[in-house]
Amino acid sequence: MILGLLGGGQLAQMLALAGHPLGIDTLFIDPAADACAARVAHHLHGRFDDPALLQQLAERADVVSYEFESVPTTGIEWLASQIPVYPPPQALASGRDRLHEKQLFGKLGIPTAEYRAVNDLEQLLGAVSELGLPALLKSRREGYDGKGQYLLRPGASAAEAWQAVGGVEAILERLVPFQRELSIIAVRSREGEIRCYPLSENQHRNGILHLSIRRPDDPLQGQAEVLVSGLLQHLDYVGVIALELFAQEGRLLANEFAPRVHNSGHWTMEGALCSQFENHLRAIFGLPLGATQGSDEVAMVNFIGHPPASADLLAIPGLHLHLYGKEPRSGRKVGHATVRGDTLTTLQQRIDAVTALLAEG
Amino acid sequence: MILGLLGGGQLAQMLALAGHPLGIDTLFIDPAADACAARVAHHLHGRFDDPALLQQLAERADVVSYEFESVPTTGIEWLASQIPVYPPPQALASGRDRLHEKQLFGKLGIPTAEYRAVNDLEQLLGAVSELGLPALLKSRREGYDGKGQYLLRPGASAAEAWQAVGGVEAILERLVPFQRELSIIAVRSREGEIRCYPLSENQHRNGILHLSIRRPDDPLQGQAEVLVSGLLQHLDYVGVIALELFAQEGRLLANEFAPRVHNSGHWTMEGALCSQFENHLRAIFGLPLGATQGSDEVAMVNFIGHPPASADLLAIPGLHLHLYGKEPRSGRKVGHATVRGDTLTTLQQRIDAVTALLAEG
Repeated sequence: MILGLLGGGQLAQMLALAGHPLGIDTLFIDPAADACAARVAHHLHGRFDDPALLQQLAERADVVSYEFESVPTTGIEWLASQIPVYPPPQALASGRDRLHEKQLFGKLGIPTAEYRAVNDLEQLLGAVSELGLPALLKSRREGYDGKGQYLLRPGASAAEAWQAVGGVEAILERLVPFQRELSIIAVRSREGEIRCYPLSENQHRNGILHLSIRRPDDPLQGQAEVLVSGLLQHLDYVGVIALELFAQEGRLLANEFAPRVHNSGHWTMEGALCSQFENHLRAIFGLPLGATQGSDEVAMVNFIGHPPASADLLAIPGLHLHLYGKEPRSGRKVGHATVRGDTLTTLQQRIDAVTALLAEG
Repeated sequence: MILGLLGGGQLAQMLALAGHPLGIDTLFIDPAADACAARVAHHLHGRFDDPALLQQLAERADVVSYEFESVPTTGIEWLASQIPVYPPPQALASGRDRLHEKQLFGKLGIPTAEYRAVNDLEQLLGAVSELGLPALLKSRREGYDGKGQYLLRPGASAAEAWQAVGGVEAILERLVPFQRELSIIAVRSREGEIRCYPLSENQHRNGILHLSIRRPDDPLQGQAEVLVSGLLQHLDYVGVIALELFAQEGRLLANEFAPRVHNSGHWTMEGALCSQFENHLRAIFGLPLGATQGSDEVAMVNFIGHPPASADLLAIPGLHLHLYGKEPRSGRKVGHATVRGDTLTTLQQRIDAVTALLAEG
């Protein structure tokens, strides 16, 4: 079996690694000459909309998937006319525009923070007076890891914010005074079976995910499963999805969804019987889904910029190292560690040991 | 970091897969054009004693290891004069000749079945009259998976047995009326730290390993750890070793050791915090060793000849599939499944479900 992928970063790499034991080989398109998935998969080097490369992907792969949201629409639609593409392109279309995403959430009864569409500075000023400040201005497209976002504090200049996001179509979103950031990773099979992982509780640093902790007994688990299941069914989705959520006084608000495997689900590699990567492959290849539960307490810590020394990390009991083979660069995700422990106390000690090494780096 | 390997079969493949998350890339020498490790590692195609390929390995790799015992002595000794080779070549030398191996066991006080060296038919006849029958005639070199062995039952023809093993230097070994076949996988670091996995209880079919079950609370665990630790220390060993044992009325007899990762330790991939593959890499690269314990009950079932359909296998809860990407062929190991369960009863049901699929194939 052959998986075709658009994108050759660490998500592609971890999908390829999950594929090998299942007898799945991976080939991927990526314009970066040093795409890190090339260590474990076949690299078709070029643009994502290169007709010759897309043709190769269609001819050689059994199923096509992607590791990021901003894949060119024309390419993915052409591929979908040739071979199965999962998650379905309509999920991609709904998720890549923050306004459409919010409208979809509204249609499905999934609560969100209050927001307004803003297409120019005048509309932004109107939205600010309606929603009040603080509020977040977000470009409708191409935002990730906090990029294309601007936090308007009380008294901030709307003009400056408008310029900061590039003067493009955007939404203004009331800042939710949330207690916790959560995400739920779920998978839906070709036959419509849905399985959800336990909630991840996430912490960010400088807008980039820093830490995810599995919360298996969270009282909001049921609520999160209802929300993500509605979304999966509506999109006739196949594969893994991530829904980011804010917890506010026992109530969940949806922030956004990612139609792919997700950084906040990396702990599933050692913290669940079947990882998000394997379950994505099982789903899109029409294989039975795997179990999403696990036994130990588990968390994931990201390495941004430069990973600590392997010898220091591996001396921490219950730690699993995942280096992506990428050149260190400020703000770049270059690896992560999964940490396990018998109890939450042990787990926290090990997380602290990892973050202490980060601080030294 | 770069690992150089002699051999590109499934053990090399699983070592390479374990290496990727640690930032270790693998290159290997193998004369087979279709060596299955080539899917995840760089293939230097040619003979194991090809001077140009050995030169490349020495120049590019940081450490060299091997996935089978019968590597040419000259090549490995030359490599060891250039860069670190682990396990040390003296382990290879002791293990590749059944007579030397038995003599080493004797020297270290490791009990074995009674045996005699036999170099011709006359000596064989003498050994038969001394040890009695049944007994096993085994060629001293190049035997694995039951090859190079002949079972002499009472009344059997010694001449026929002598011919069957090829008339080469051999040993005759009294057949041990054992209750169980066990193996212990252990790892020793460069600094001399030793960690042992729980015992594996093994079942063979047609001389090939069929099933290994982890036995974490076995009363013979301590005895096995003493035996393997003595061997590791004597050999100044670095890396993973497997010691095969017979259990006979509460007493262990050593059968043979393998100076490498071992089929009866494949369950460690999901059944231990750190697998035998990762621990081998940690040891030989001078990294801290990983934990050898795990939580669930766990077993491994081999796929010989042809694997069952993936969809049938993956429908079994708690099953992890490992296909090697090898062409199916009678008697060939083409993959395995790790099976987990909360209890031994659940585990046994799942093992039965896998073996039922084998029977159909």
